[in-house]
Amino acid sequence: MNKTSKLLIVLLSTVTALNAQAVDEAQLKKIYDAALTQGKAYDWLNYLSNQIGGRLSGSIQAQRAVDYTKMQMDSLNLDRVWLQPVMVPKWVRGTAEFAYFELTPGVTTNVPICALGGSVATPSKGIKANVIEVQGIEELAGLGKESIEGKIVFFNRPMDATVINTFSAYSGCVDQRYSGAAEAAKYGALGVIVRSMNLRLDDYPHTGSMGYGDLPVNERIPAAAISTNAAELLSASLKLNSDIKFYFKQNCRQFDDVESYNVIGEIKGSEHPEEIIVIGGHLDSWDLGDGSHDDGAGCVQSMEVLHLLKKTGYKPKRTIRAVLFMNEENGLRGGNEYAQKANAKNEKHIFALESDSGGFSPRGFSFDCSQRDLNQVKSWAKLFEPYYIHLFVEGYAGADINPLKSEGMVLAGLRPDSQRYFDHHHAENDTFEHINKRELELGAAAMTSLVYLFDKYGIPGE
Amino acid sequence: MNKTSKLLIVLLSTVTALNAQAVDEAQLKKIYDAALTQGKAYDWLNYLSNQIGGRLSGSIQAQRAVDYTKMQMDSLNLDRVWLQPVMVPKWVRGTAEFAYFELTPGVTTNVPICALGGSVATPSKGIKANVIEVQGIEELAGLGKESIEGKIVFFNRPMDATVINTFSAYSGCVDQRYSGAAEAAKYGALGVIVRSMNLRLDDYPHTGSMGYGDLPVNERIPAAAISTNAAELLSASLKLNSDIKFYFKQNCRQFDDVESYNVIGEIKGSEHPEEIIVIGGHLDSWDLGDGSHDDGAGCVQSMEVLHLLKKTGYKPKRTIRAVLFMNEENGLRGGNEYAQKANAKNEKHIFALESDSGGFSPRGFSFDCSQRDLNQVKSWAKLFEPYYIHLFVEGYAGADINPLKSEGMVLAGLRPDSQRYFDHHHAENDTFEHINKRELELGAAAMTSLVYLFDKYGIPGE
Repeated sequence: MNKTSKLLIVLLSTVTALNAQAVDEAQLKKIYDAALTQGKAYDWLNYLSNQIGGRLSGSIQAQRAVDYTKMQMDSLNLDRVWLQPVMVPKWVRGTAEFAYFELTPGVTTNVPICALGGSVATPSKGIKANVIEVQGIEELAGLGKESIEGKIVFFNRPMDATVINTFSAYSGCVDQRYSGAAEAAKYGALGVIVRSMNLRLDDYPHTGSMGYGDLPVNERIPAAAISTNAAELLSASLKLNSDIKFYFKQNCRQFDDVESYNVIGEIKGSEHPEEIIVIGGHLDSWDLGDGSHDDGAGCVQSMEVLHLLKKTGYKPKRTIRAVLFMNEENGLRGGNEYAQKANAKNEKHIFALESDSGGFSPRGFSFDCSQRDLNQVKSWAKLFEPYYIHLFVEGYAGADINPLKSEGMVLAGLRPDSQRYFDHHHAENDTFEHINKRELELGAAAMTSLVYLFDKYGIPGE
Repeated sequence: MNKTSKLLIVLLSTVTALNAQAVDEAQLKKIYDAALTQGKAYDWLNYLSNQIGGRLSGSIQAQRAVDYTKMQMDSLNLDRVWLQPVMVPKWVRGTAEFAYFELTPGVTTNVPICALGGSVATPSKGIKANVIEVQGIEELAGLGKESIEGKIVFFNRPMDATVINTFSAYSGCVDQRYSGAAEAAKYGALGVIVRSMNLRLDDYPHTGSMGYGDLPVNERIPAAAISTNAAELLSASLKLNSDIKFYFKQNCRQFDDVESYNVIGEIKGSEHPEEIIVIGGHLDSWDLGDGSHDDGAGCVQSMEVLHLLKKTGYKPKRTIRAVLFMNEENGLRGGNEYAQKANAKNEKHIFALESDSGGFSPRGFSFDCSQRDLNQVKSWAKLFEPYYIHLFVEGYAGADINPLKSEGMVLAGLRPDSQRYFDHHHAENDTFEHINKRELELGAAAMTSLVYLFDKYGIPGE
């Protein structure tokens, strides 16, 4: 090849690259414009939250959410919409929990409390016992049976306020909630109460899943969360008087598993229909609020990705599938079932993106993938700058898509601003009024943009 | 110099640079930790918002805010705290405004309305007239006196939802509010109503400043804002029936100027006391809400910068001054007075940073400075990444510090996430409950970090 030919090739490929960039910029702009002016996510979430409400697995609300989202996906003129059956646990809270602590007989302070998901009930007349406060599970062994037996263990380690990403602070604390009861039971505790996983001092108890591991059924003790304000007050009161009695009563119950569904809609790829891109959130929620942030937001954003691709006239080369997973909160049955079926059918998933961190202003994405794939993603970063999307970091992607994980595949999670998330997480105030329409839409637009890029460019060959 | 000496010098300067970076990283960590665990900003704002409330220039609340913030600065053991007198306008809303529109006589719909700041009153029995809807001032000339005279002009251009930075969308709209009345009066309009500057559809009217320019006093017409929902309804109703009558009544009034104050506190620099760094917000607010986001947040964050420098044991080389400016909303007298006095005393300001974009999660800063100074700032960007601060962009800094602007000086504005700001801006719902403690604290920490870096490194020599 002579010099002129070489130069021409360089020039040509530069022009092609610039042209591709301009096309991508224009497509992202179309996606964002459509999300912010013709989006359906906010109205869908309004219905899920205010007409249906909390959607605990196995509940009538969860079934109504399945029906509603399937109907809405049907209305999008997708290539296929279907329900994927999955057996889910059915835990029911029962009547409202009640708790107080007693400084001296007759001098009581009521405490906002809720049973943890999966907990057993108290005896019908409740439990009343002395309290032993600990900062974590690791203290139990040191205290031993002699200090713990016959008492209620109070796990009071707060989330670390100095950790900027609140999800990391949550990870550093949630072992108390998940395993506190199973561990305390080994030392003869009668029950456990856990400080709510919330950085703010307020009056909402926050539920969430807990498990007993392989503890025999007759050794299981009830577990509940109390509000952060109550935890502070109880702790201060115990310093004045270690003989305080704590009373709580809950009549939650585990039923047999029931059938439920993942809700799935897809647009068939025009060139590589066998390569599948999944976007998803989980349709179930806890029962105290209406599950707007956790994770109604992720569901409607995932549906919105399909809607925005249609609305902007983009014809994907690969198959784009929105999956609304059932039972993330207390079992992950939907995520496991989806992955198992995908494997059984030898489906090839190249990219999966989950939104399960709230409907707040999007900051970027975390990626669970090879360095090569992360480099490709980072080469797209400039396209996202006009939309204030700056985070393209390694990290956990999402619980529902995690079972799909395989060599050569990219998993990602939408990362919204995390500061407000745990104020609402699993509590009565996870409600629609705390959703900002534009923030929700910007999240959906960011997801759609990333899906567009993965669809167009695929993932790099080996 | 031989090769070995050269190598040694390169190595030494590398080690020094790495060491400086480690020191800076440690100092930022100290600042953030202190902000998130020992901050005072949230409690200060709670007092300003809930014990004092809206602080319109010339009001008793504005005076109480001056007294309170001076007292709090006094308690910080600063080197100097003082009040800088300034004459401010005193506009008073009067009794609650009232409005409706009438489809046919007797069939009326009430409309949430508020007078714009600086507007004249209606006649005491109100104004009732036909409505002419326009999308902007530029339509008035085409319509002419024959279409406008004797009517109420309804400015209804919405903020552009496709603009990602909501402050830009605001800029593209606010001429209707500021100049609509002065322009419409020239064509014989009886009054103007303006769609609230809000991207959300809701029921809050949003006030804000307006001016009559050099329109003679007897030609001035009343101006008010109506809620976005009311604007949509009125517009739809006008399409069905252009003969609709609109009624509104307001008895706001402009009094003579009164004396008020900028509140100023400073830590004297240990090495270059003559070089001054200013951080500020404005202490006045509109009267409908309690001014938590606009701009109580900026005031307590500015005070917090001084508090955090003290708390982390940092002794600034330069003089660090927090200025709580009076009267940003309807006159900018405080900002102008401060700059005038600084110039008269030949004070050398090297850096000024304003927080006046709400107490939301900080995204970064905008800079009004030379390219050389912006490059220095960008060299610090890595230090901010762990704190999710990514924006270091050219742009407008802030209204109060703008009069200070001079060659070789750096002006900057804190840039929080802007999506929720205009839901609250100048409206009844700009209240403390919409402040998230951590978001407020993270803003203060980001400001303190930037002040620390400018204090330590100064601005590059010519």
